[in-house]
Amino acid sequence: MDLNVPLPVIGIVRTRYAELEATPIHAALNRAESGTIEIADRYAGGLDGLAEFDYAWLVTWLHKLPGPGNDPPLRQVPFLLRSQQRQKGVFATRSPRRINPIGLSLIQLLDVTGPVIRFAGVDLIDGTPVIDLKPYVARFDRPPGEPRCGWFDDVTIGDGVTPAQPPPAKPPS
Amino acid sequence: MDLNVPLPVIGIVRTRYAELEATPIHAALNRAESGTIEIADRYAGGLDGLAEFDYAWLVTWLHKLPGPGNDPPLRQVPFLLRSQQRQKGVFATRSPRRINPIGLSLIQLLDVTGPVIRFAGVDLIDGTPVIDLKPYVARFDRPPGEPRCGWFDDVTIGDGVTPAQPPPAKPPS
Repeated sequence: MDLNVPLPVIGIVRTRYAELEATPIHAALNRAESGTIEIADRYAGGLDGLAEFDYAWLVTWLHKLPGPGNDPPLRQVPFLLRSQQRQKGVFATRSPRRINPIGLSLIQLLDVTGPVIRFAGVDLIDGTPVIDLKPYVARFDRPPGEPRCGWFDDVTIGDGVTPAQPPPAKPPS
Repeated sequence: MDLNVPLPVIGIVRTRYAELEATPIHAALNRAESGTIEIADRYAGGLDGLAEFDYAWLVTWLHKLPGPGNDPPLRQVPFLLRSQQRQKGVFATRSPRRINPIGLSLIQLLDVTGPVIRFAGVDLIDGTPVIDLKPYVARFDRPPGEPRCGWFDDVTIGDGVTPAQPPPAKPPS
């Protein structure tokens, strides 16, 4: 079953990346680099108060990836496990090749000036459409303790990883 | 500009809530209660490996709320600020009345049996469509230190808050 709803684009991400293969795979692995978000003028009023948060969830539509109707494999080898060729279910990965290609990036807010947000933590190509923006709220978004993170607990993830340059993976202990 | 893409429903959330006004406002405020997610059979293979994670992001389409084309106000009084009647931009709130009514719930995974996920942390009404499910990865999803969380830092948020029963809010210090 599909939901047939229009998805308004609330803004556009601007970064220096034009190619997926050269783009860092996650915002947290590229915190030093900054980009901007240009919110559409009609939605700019919705940014009121956002500058008082240090982080936000940037929810995007990964428009350069195969979308619905071109379903990706349900089991994939994540970039981070390429050297081991271990498959995981797509819902146990952060792969961008998802049933709905929705991106979730934790960005650090640097400043908000009118409809333009400057942020740190770049993992998106230039022109990516933004479909939502939510403030990071520690009370809601931080689980207690040190949660198990599945196969991620067995890999060493260095900064700056891209699909073209996956890291050497540590075998599971 | 709208994206005209179909959104496949990957599953349905089952909870004991039929009315928005009686539903806890956030999973983190109702961690003791459990619900289930019924993943569509055709996508069940994507769950492989998910049980090894303690938490996941449940991405939903909040189908009972006005959707695109019925834009909510860009400035709203969040439930948690009702007693103070302070407005905030929608992108500085976690209000479900968003331009795209996309929900983001941090759920605790209790078990995964075939296509059925039992989870703790209920903030959705029964029948809510699931559009994505991503594992919680501390390395990606936990910002360093104690980030500022805007107006949330000024309110005391007790467990079990619902729209029908907002908490008494502490005025900003």
